[in-house]
Amino acid sequence: MDPSADRRGERRAALREALIGAAERTVAEQGLAALRARDLARAAGCAVGAIYTVFPDLDALALAVNLRTLNLFDAALGPVDAPAPDRPAGGGTVGATADPRAAADALVRLGLAYLAFAQAHPLRWDALFRHRPPPGQRAPDWYVAEQARLFSRIERPLAALRPDLPEPERSLLARSLFSATHGIVALGLDEQRMALPAATLRVQLETLVRAMAAGLMSQRPGEFTFGA
Amino acid sequence: MDPSADRRGERRAALREALIGAAERTVAEQGLAALRARDLARAAGCAVGAIYTVFPDLDALALAVNLRTLNLFDAALGPVDAPAPDRPAGGGTVGATADPRAAADALVRLGLAYLAFAQAHPLRWDALFRHRPPPGQRAPDWYVAEQARLFSRIERPLAALRPDLPEPERSLLARSLFSATHGIVALGLDEQRMALPAATLRVQLETLVRAMAAGLMSQRPGEFTFGA
Repeated sequence: MDPSADRRGERRAALREALIGAAERTVAEQGLAALRARDLARAAGCAVGAIYTVFPDLDALALAVNLRTLNLFDAALGPVDAPAPDRPAGGGTVGATADPRAAADALVRLGLAYLAFAQAHPLRWDALFRHRPPPGQRAPDWYVAEQARLFSRIERPLAALRPDLPEPERSLLARSLFSATHGIVALGLDEQRMALPAATLRVQLETLVRAMAAGLMSQRPGEFTFGA
Repeated sequence: MDPSADRRGERRAALREALIGAAERTVAEQGLAALRARDLARAAGCAVGAIYTVFPDLDALALAVNLRTLNLFDAALGPVDAPAPDRPAGGGTVGATADPRAAADALVRLGLAYLAFAQAHPLRWDALFRHRPPPGQRAPDWYVAEQARLFSRIERPLAALRPDLPEPERSLLARSLFSATHGIVALGLDEQRMALPAATLRVQLETLVRAMAAGLMSQRPGEFTFGA
């Protein structure tokens, strides 16, 4: 290989990293709408045109920031199958999936972690939902795969609650639970709308998740879609 | 009374009505962001300045449109305590609140009606959530009262499911169920995101609501907020 090609590759990687870092700070501090090529170029110390040598458009850069936000949330959730913080000594782990009680606890923890993340990173979290691909495009596969990895965090405890459910039903149920949690968090944190205190939101999430978990457990094996 | 004052009152009322009608059509066809004083004045056949003789600002006009949207949804739900459409002959009514099964059915119907409304009136529905009061202001009391009236539609079947719950818990539960339903509908209808078919959304709503209802019924009287 030509060593100068290597160096070009390194410079490109460094520029890419600098731009994502600058975009990440902008989104976190001012929100997605504040992403502007000129400001990003200045922050990354490059010409405006150089941005487009490493990203096809600002949309791709916004998606790179959102990927980091998803990873940040994933990291905030802790290792998969970690013991529950409130059951350190020999108690059930999320991995000990035969225990439906531990599974319900794990689902509650996920819901509360989602609320805590939205509160800690309001503008990054907002950008996850505000960003949309250009008309006619869908999110790229690597982004969808990352979302799916987060949904699998919900699917695991659901499998413990309802081992009889086939994968497609469990996967849909995980998405339903995520959407329901998101609705409670998004409307509840909207200060000009419901303006509920965080303690109330935590009660809402815990109540909803525990009622749903109890309901799922009370159903007969195989019972899932009702009378539709 | 001075008859000319009466006529002025009538003219004001007619102008107000014409402006709300024009704003309603604009929101329904083009969305909230398309509300512009000049276009509204043209549609209502008045001078731009005349708008501000009957509304303090466009924000108040947007709120008047949203009130009509809430009323339209309320009307779509049918009379309070109407018999369930699928139980016309002597079956339980939503008013026959001693029957938890009918109450769960009523909650499912409300969730499905919400989805149907969002599909039938996407831009009007969007405007309900997109509109926000000017900074530092909250929605006026008459608007909050109208929202509360809609929440009471959810509280009534919840009271049948869990007659033991005191009013504040029931009221919060109704808001939780609404937010959860909203989350499923809003993320599910977002075509560039989940892009789920309507039949799938109906399954999600029915599954969530029935699981939650079954879970609430399986709890002991008085049990509601869990280990928080």
